[in-house]
Amino acid sequence: MTKEPLDPANARLTIDCLRFLAADAVEQARSGHPGTPMEAAPMAYLLYRRHLRHNPADPHWPGRDRFVLSCGHASMLLYGALHLSGYALSLEDLRNFRQLGSPAAGHPEYGHAPGVETTTGPLGQGVAVSVGLALGARFLAEQASADLFNYRVYCLCSDGDLMEGVAGEAASLAGHLGLGNLILIYLDNRITIEGETRLAFSEQVAARFLAYDWQVQQVEGENLAEIEAALNAAKADPRPSLIIARTHIAPGAPTKQDSAEAHGAPLGAEELAATKRAYGWDPQLRFHVPEAVRAHMAACRERGARLQADWEERLAQAEAQPSPTLRAWLWGRAGELPDGCGDNLPRFVPSDGPLATRQASGIVLNALAARLPLLLGGSADLAPSTNTLLKGEDSFSRESSGRNLHFGVREHAMGAILNGLSHTPGLIAYGATFLIFSDYLRPPLRLAAMMGLAPIYVFTHDSIALGEDGPTHQPVEQLAGLRAVPNLRVIRPCDANETAEAWRLAVEHRTGPSALILSRQGLPVLDRERLAPAEGVRRGGYVLAEEEGQLRALLIATGAEVHVALAARELLQKEGIGTRVVSLPCWELFEEQDVAYRSAVLPPACAARVAVEAASPFGWERWVGEGGAVVAMRSYGASAPGAVLMKHFGFTAEALANKLRELLG
Amino acid sequence: MTKEPLDPANARLTIDCLRFLAADAVEQARSGHPGTPMEAAPMAYLLYRRHLRHNPADPHWPGRDRFVLSCGHASMLLYGALHLSGYALSLEDLRNFRQLGSPAAGHPEYGHAPGVETTTGPLGQGVAVSVGLALGARFLAEQASADLFNYRVYCLCSDGDLMEGVAGEAASLAGHLGLGNLILIYLDNRITIEGETRLAFSEQVAARFLAYDWQVQQVEGENLAEIEAALNAAKADPRPSLIIARTHIAPGAPTKQDSAEAHGAPLGAEELAATKRAYGWDPQLRFHVPEAVRAHMAACRERGARLQADWEERLAQAEAQPSPTLRAWLWGRAGELPDGCGDNLPRFVPSDGPLATRQASGIVLNALAARLPLLLGGSADLAPSTNTLLKGEDSFSRESSGRNLHFGVREHAMGAILNGLSHTPGLIAYGATFLIFSDYLRPPLRLAAMMGLAPIYVFTHDSIALGEDGPTHQPVEQLAGLRAVPNLRVIRPCDANETAEAWRLAVEHRTGPSALILSRQGLPVLDRERLAPAEGVRRGGYVLAEEEGQLRALLIATGAEVHVALAARELLQKEGIGTRVVSLPCWELFEEQDVAYRSAVLPPACAARVAVEAASPFGWERWVGEGGAVVAMRSYGASAPGAVLMKHFGFTAEALANKLRELLG
Repeated sequence: MTKEPLDPANARLTIDCLRFLAADAVEQARSGHPGTPMEAAPMAYLLYRRHLRHNPADPHWPGRDRFVLSCGHASMLLYGALHLSGYALSLEDLRNFRQLGSPAAGHPEYGHAPGVETTTGPLGQGVAVSVGLALGARFLAEQASADLFNYRVYCLCSDGDLMEGVAGEAASLAGHLGLGNLILIYLDNRITIEGETRLAFSEQVAARFLAYDWQVQQVEGENLAEIEAALNAAKADPRPSLIIARTHIAPGAPTKQDSAEAHGAPLGAEELAATKRAYGWDPQLRFHVPEAVRAHMAACRERGARLQADWEERLAQAEAQPSPTLRAWLWGRAGELPDGCGDNLPRFVPSDGPLATRQASGIVLNALAARLPLLLGGSADLAPSTNTLLKGEDSFSRESSGRNLHFGVREHAMGAILNGLSHTPGLIAYGATFLIFSDYLRPPLRLAAMMGLAPIYVFTHDSIALGEDGPTHQPVEQLAGLRAVPNLRVIRPCDANETAEAWRLAVEHRTGPSALILSRQGLPVLDRERLAPAEGVRRGGYVLAEEEGQLRALLIATGAEVHVALAARELLQKEGIGTRVVSLPCWELFEEQDVAYRSAVLPPACAARVAVEAASPFGWERWVGEGGAVVAMRSYGASAPGAVLMKHFGFTAEALANKLRELLG
Repeated sequence: MTKEPLDPANARLTIDCLRFLAADAVEQARSGHPGTPMEAAPMAYLLYRRHLRHNPADPHWPGRDRFVLSCGHASMLLYGALHLSGYALSLEDLRNFRQLGSPAAGHPEYGHAPGVETTTGPLGQGVAVSVGLALGARFLAEQASADLFNYRVYCLCSDGDLMEGVAGEAASLAGHLGLGNLILIYLDNRITIEGETRLAFSEQVAARFLAYDWQVQQVEGENLAEIEAALNAAKADPRPSLIIARTHIAPGAPTKQDSAEAHGAPLGAEELAATKRAYGWDPQLRFHVPEAVRAHMAACRERGARLQADWEERLAQAEAQPSPTLRAWLWGRAGELPDGCGDNLPRFVPSDGPLATRQASGIVLNALAARLPLLLGGSADLAPSTNTLLKGEDSFSRESSGRNLHFGVREHAMGAILNGLSHTPGLIAYGATFLIFSDYLRPPLRLAAMMGLAPIYVFTHDSIALGEDGPTHQPVEQLAGLRAVPNLRVIRPCDANETAEAWRLAVEHRTGPSALILSRQGLPVLDRERLAPAEGVRRGGYVLAEEEGQLRALLIATGAEVHVALAARELLQKEGIGTRVVSLPCWELFEEQDVAYRSAVLPPACAARVAVEAASPFGWERWVGEGGAVVAMRSYGASAPGAVLMKHFGFTAEALANKLRELLG
């Protein structure tokens, strides 16, 4: 499509139209960021009109090129481009920019406006998500069909994005993997919120990206021919490409061009009018789209329909004789899992133990991977410890698109790349690290939960019981911190069979992320003939061991501490105290159950409740109530063998029994 | 001291001794990381014996050079070097490596072993903390005394450190600021946990650091003369310096050198014996320190005593005619604040309002800064929004060591740099960003809390009420996540006077970090003649508005929602329902109060309690009990004007009153 020669007059008119749609919308909302959309309009024009293979009539067409606006504050640029290209985003929507219910939200929100590929705003995330999108595309191209998944990923970013470490991590990995399908355009406007960018940022970005093994080009931000040539060269290069565009924030604004003032506030009526006059526009016209622009941009829909029709034809041909991977992709596209994929998972018996839940997880993961060809993932350089290697599968490298990803010691980028993979239809992506390092990837984890993406986090080494590595490695507040995240499922299984159920839930749950919280230390495999079946995990919490005699005491636990609770129950039952043990691996699922079930598991009449978890007690009051107690960590951990620490910090059957005896008075 | 010629025989003996102290300790503990200490022993030797200006007899000497082991898993290297240099760390301590109560913890823990400058383990942190230490040194040298604070910061790191984004952020800033007092040694052993480093990391590190404007040198990791020359060149260069040392993990181990196996597990008795034989050591000897090594290393103590004595003399001279800054430093060193510093803070009256607490914060901060010459800080490119600029003060730049820091859009590095500044005696450091971006700096925030450092976080834009920027910018789970962190104080003031009290608490509290949670939107300044005084903040929570008549209902709130609670109280009192409003800005402080006070504020007999906070309800059960309710956010926010959102999500006086009417039946 780039064979069509540039049409300078219409190009310029469309670009200016994009500028004023943005400036008008910000003015109307009395809130927003006019300067960056105005400077980036030339790139948006070239991409949406000439380079992106996209079909405005079907924003979900899987073969489309992806466009990510990493500098999400420039959202009006995206909305303007989508509107002019013919997406279902009306001028009225743009007029309602930043108002309740408008798809034109303050920052681009995935699922709100058609054509928004991912939610952006927190800087750096879009760049790293783009790396994940490019990785997913290359995986599908190589594993499923080079003909169907040869799409590219374009990302537009600002200096703020490139200052963020997560972008550096992701860029280093993209260069390492040679993701040639990724093109990043950097708006080098030299202005930040605090003033000139050189207040804090004077590194040579070009040299840095060359060090990552990227192609790097520099262009002048208003020179369409130069940008066009750079885009063509970027497409031809086997490396990921960075195009550094020297731009000016709010170009043409008489007093605010090149000023931090143009970043995050409306230009003001007077300045906006003066800017319009400088461009030869009528200051009276607001949200004005000249007919010539409409006609010029109509080509997007026509070309898009043609491109998608070609693609659907190729798909139909491929569907006739689908490879196993393409078949899996078709399932995934339909939001289905292969029949019986979650059934027949490994089951464990007591003689399999002791088995750390991370070990059980490795066994279950490999069983799932055998049935799910598009399940892929890896760890932030901890695969042998997190047990997340898919056996017999290749690594994803420059040469080969295997299913074992090696993220390096880059947890934050891993989180964002998982988002990119999870945006890719058909793929089920997991990422692993120690639970403590979940702190490094909270920003993308939150975005996954907000967008309803479903990556699976495998967080091992889940408590002080990891032992000698000491307090820096021992999670305390991480469980509470994760449980507070809306739409994230946190599942902490107590043994191998609960682990299998947890994986099943995670793979089947496709509308939000799941975090599996796993032990480093070996744990008994519970005797499910004597105790309740592990399927109880599906309801979040269940009665694992019934009381004998009248119910007088309740022990509530998760993960490894379930075993301590069971031992405490033995002590109390010997004294004739009817004691129940409830396993509560997933609070979120338990809360989704009806009141009848929850009350059956935790009878309100039984006030003598002790919860035990080797983590912060924060939040446990919800389950133990005012009459109960929580045996938990009130400080950071220490460095010593795990069993020593569990005793030292009071996680013993005797301590639990004592606590209940106290409550019973 | 580097004028003394190298003594190759004793150097080699000491280096091998360091290697086997590490390998023996890991073997004894049956846990730990032998390979890296073995490879880095030459650098540790050269630093501790020849380059570091340190005094083992006084690890707190403020004029010492700092050494940070960013690859904290190599802790035994540090313990060995400290032991041999004459720090109060015995061979017995080393034998108890990784055991409960031993100062020789699994990773270096600040405050456990003498000479550990900062807690490390989570990768990347040590590099970024070193940048903060170097920044602090340059600040003191320029502001207080070039003669007293000309110390250097040395940091040893691994590939994992350099893969982490936080290290990239900090290195970019260090190059930008030209921190020539910083020397980073990178152990390029080409091995990671998952195998060879090139599985995930093939960028050109040297070129990247040149792009950051660092000096870069490459050496062979066993070549003492080469390393020595590089250290001397690094000291002479005005830029921060990176020395890339090509090393081999577990050098000399016959089967495990250059293998990932040597990273995180003992070598094994046989391999260790073979390694000792290869070095000409007696395999029978464990924890062996040859007499020649003791004699050779005795120089550290002698030289250290001399260096410190010289320094104390210079200090005594300076003390005779101290500059205001040096006087402030002397206070800070003694852990004191200037008299009356917290008194006479700005007070606000209702006619000052409406005033956002971020605005009040800016006024109070500037008042404090006028009295505290060593209070410094800045924001991650949001100073105009977080109101954290110190008026009339210079920026910290390459040319000038002013008190206004510009971190750039690098929240994570900001957090770690604050730790480095907080390690620097005398300095009080603050860092600002939007509350949502606290997610980016959780790892260093946790380390600050664990170490008992006292940076002050200024987190503004604290709820959905920030409005149009939408869900990506609206905190929901962040308050709960922060409250779960042990030893962190989270303070969310409700008006300008509570904000002043919050700042006072933060500045006075020097054994843990404080997070101030501030509003974007304007809030009334409460009439303290009618309501309780804002000094109640000092107890964490207090009765802001007493009930009229018999107490029947309790409203508990923080921050902006206190005003909604007050309005709801009006509604209920009109109906004759005695309603009390409790302001609970700091849970941690309130929990520290005795039971009598807490019960006086929240009488247990009053079960009709409603808590209101425009954030996740997670954790609020603690205060409302089983009979109460929480009006909070159960989802992510939305993009619309703040007042519209507060209504939309149910934060209205009417909704609160209704909830209480329901509870009262």
